Amino acid sequence: MVIAGIMTGTSVDAIDMAICEISNKGDRHMVSLCSFETRPFSDDTRELIMRALAGSASMEELCDLPFFLARDYAAVVRERSFSEPLSGVAIHGQTLWHHPPVSTWQAASGPALAALLSIPVIHDFRSADIALGGQGAPLVPVFDAATLVHPTVDRVALNVGGMANITILPRNASTVDVWAFDTGPGNVWIDAGIRSTFGKRYDTDGHIGRAGRVIPPMFQECTSFPYYNQDPPKSTGRELFSESEARRLITKYSHPSSPLEDVVTTMTEVTAWSVADHIKRYAPTTTEILVSGGGSQNSYLLERIGVLLREAGVEATIVVHEHWNAKEAMAFAYLGWRTINGLPGNLPRVTGASRAVVLGSIAKA
Amino acid sequence: MVIAGIMTGTSVDAIDMAICEISNKGDRHMVSLCSFETRPFSDDTRELIMRALAGSASMEELCDLPFFLARDYAAVVRERSFSEPLSGVAIHGQTLWHHPPVSTWQAASGPALAALLSIPVIHDFRSADIALGGQGAPLVPVFDAATLVHPTVDRVALNVGGMANITILPRNASTVDVWAFDTGPGNVWIDAGIRSTFGKRYDTDGHIGRAGRVIPPMFQECTSFPYYNQDPPKSTGRELFSESEARRLITKYSHPSSPLEDVVTTMTEVTAWSVADHIKRYAPTTTEILVSGGGSQNSYLLERIGVLLREAGVEATIVVHEHWNAKEAMAFAYLGWRTINGLPGNLPRVTGASRAVVLGSIAKA
Repeated sequence: MVIAGIMTGTSVDAIDMAICEISNKGDRHMVSLCSFETRPFSDDTRELIMRALAGSASMEELCDLPFFLARDYAAVVRERSFSEPLSGVAIHGQTLWHHPPVSTWQAASGPALAALLSIPVIHDFRSADIALGGQGAPLVPVFDAATLVHPTVDRVALNVGGMANITILPRNASTVDVWAFDTGPGNVWIDAGIRSTFGKRYDTDGHIGRAGRVIPPMFQECTSFPYYNQDPPKSTGRELFSESEARRLITKYSHPSSPLEDVVTTMTEVTAWSVADHIKRYAPTTTEILVSGGGSQNSYLLERIGVLLREAGVEATIVVHEHWNAKEAMAFAYLGWRTINGLPGNLPRVTGASRAVVLGSIAKA
Repeated sequence: MVIAGIMTGTSVDAIDMAICEISNKGDRHMVSLCSFETRPFSDDTRELIMRALAGSASMEELCDLPFFLARDYAAVVRERSFSEPLSGVAIHGQTLWHHPPVSTWQAASGPALAALLSIPVIHDFRSADIALGGQGAPLVPVFDAATLVHPTVDRVALNVGGMANITILPRNASTVDVWAFDTGPGNVWIDAGIRSTFGKRYDTDGHIGRAGRVIPPMFQECTSFPYYNQDPPKSTGRELFSESEARRLITKYSHPSSPLEDVVTTMTEVTAWSVADHIKRYAPTTTEILVSGGGSQNSYLLERIGVLLREAGVEATIVVHEHWNAKEAMAFAYLGWRTINGLPGNLPRVTGASRAVVLGSIAKA
């Protein structure tokens, strides 16, 4: 079965589409990547998302947004390079609010997209888990469990998108042994630091972070959020680790006499610390970390995670995942395949839901 | 197949649930009502809906609302009097905005409800039609076509809820001969008149409307909306015929010296005129009108429709539909059944969509 997975993360940087061939091989699921492409949002969609995330969208704009997203997704699917017919399109949608365990909001109209493409669309993957008392996140772990468990190596899958999350994959683990949670901010605060000092969108390869020094009181305040010490299951988002909070912290600790880089270095250290600290506490036997997401391209961030882990007695090789940029979209293609096949997609131990459940909804049009 | 249909209209008065047994009989679909019940919203849900409709809900509240609705719907389904197992629950959801042909917004989380009940939920019926250039409304006509076409009588099905709409069902019509559209306000302006003068929720049996006189300049302004003269396909809602617009009109035309009833009488006349005028223009051969919705219980409104039609040369009997209060919920049970069976639910001639399409999305949980 060939399924397209479409992911748009909290960074609102682009529409990622991974087309995957998914099949059963014995009791294992095989997921192979046929193509991966990234397209920008159209300008009007991007503006609506930004207004929605800023809380300044009108009811009419909030009504329009899921249809604008469907139109943009449809264009990405139609213009795909991999031309074989698709059995389904699985979409994450654009998270506008995440309020576990009460509610979550991934905008994008499944029925509209299915109607535009005449292809079944699987959508709204987080709500069923939330309704069962779960965090609605993370959902990628079932994909990590299917594709990354190693017979002899204790692995961690680390994804650094807007937020950062880890999946703990003990050697030879079965799905129920897998654990996962958000560790805190990923790129969101680093990017906020970059934007407010250098006016760039992100820190290419960590050049700027590498050039500065940590501002100790800023680091201390940034790492004092109670979230870090909460026990999993837990998930977070831009509601807590917001850009406005980042701007507040940056303004508070920026001094005219200190180099602009220091703010970026500090934010990078905050992300590195929160990742390393969680691995130290919850997966101390880890020997291999597979990193995905935009943050996997920040070599300074990865170096700092390695150093902090070594200081904590965790000797782990940090490897960039083969499909570092496609992995989340691949995971949603796989989740869509599970839903089509009536298989649950959440791991109750991971999300905290009361039971495993078939995720999402299928629009056939 | 036994399907529950759940409807909550623009009046936000209650949650209506019709449980229907639906089957094929030759090439006809038989829909029989097993039970009908009406429950109030929980207080917190109702308050959130009101805030959302007023445009004053926060992003977090808008995120919560679909989950609150799912919880309320789940309670109604669980506490049902008809205890046979359900093959599905079809939900209309709460319309928060309707912006054809761009977008529409029926809040209520299908996946959450399916997870809470462990029953498949069919939801979000209007979006696919909108994506294909349609109005996303009305959707009840396919149910009217299945259940109300008469071999020798030219019928009109009139529903008077918050808005009013008609389905034109010529004798012996097949589905493609059916036409339907919103005629304008139903109870929304009458109720606004009642609330602002007598502080009641609605005009029981039209007592108040019957006691007053039409205020001619108010009637003239209320009937001057360009919507009335637009050709179908067309649909409308509280965006145009809003309570705030009603309040503005009421304030403008209420004089301390005139009886309070006059405002209600005028609003009733506006609804009666808009219904009668559309029937005169689009279905002049009608001899039977089957009325459903809360407005069917306003005998003064029905009388006025009859008088205006006779004055226009249309001699039609006005009959209250056997299931006047259950009909819309029954229609959504039927639409859910069509979706489960892969049958399209929209009538392109009625909605203006470019093609017939399987409506909604199915959450299996």
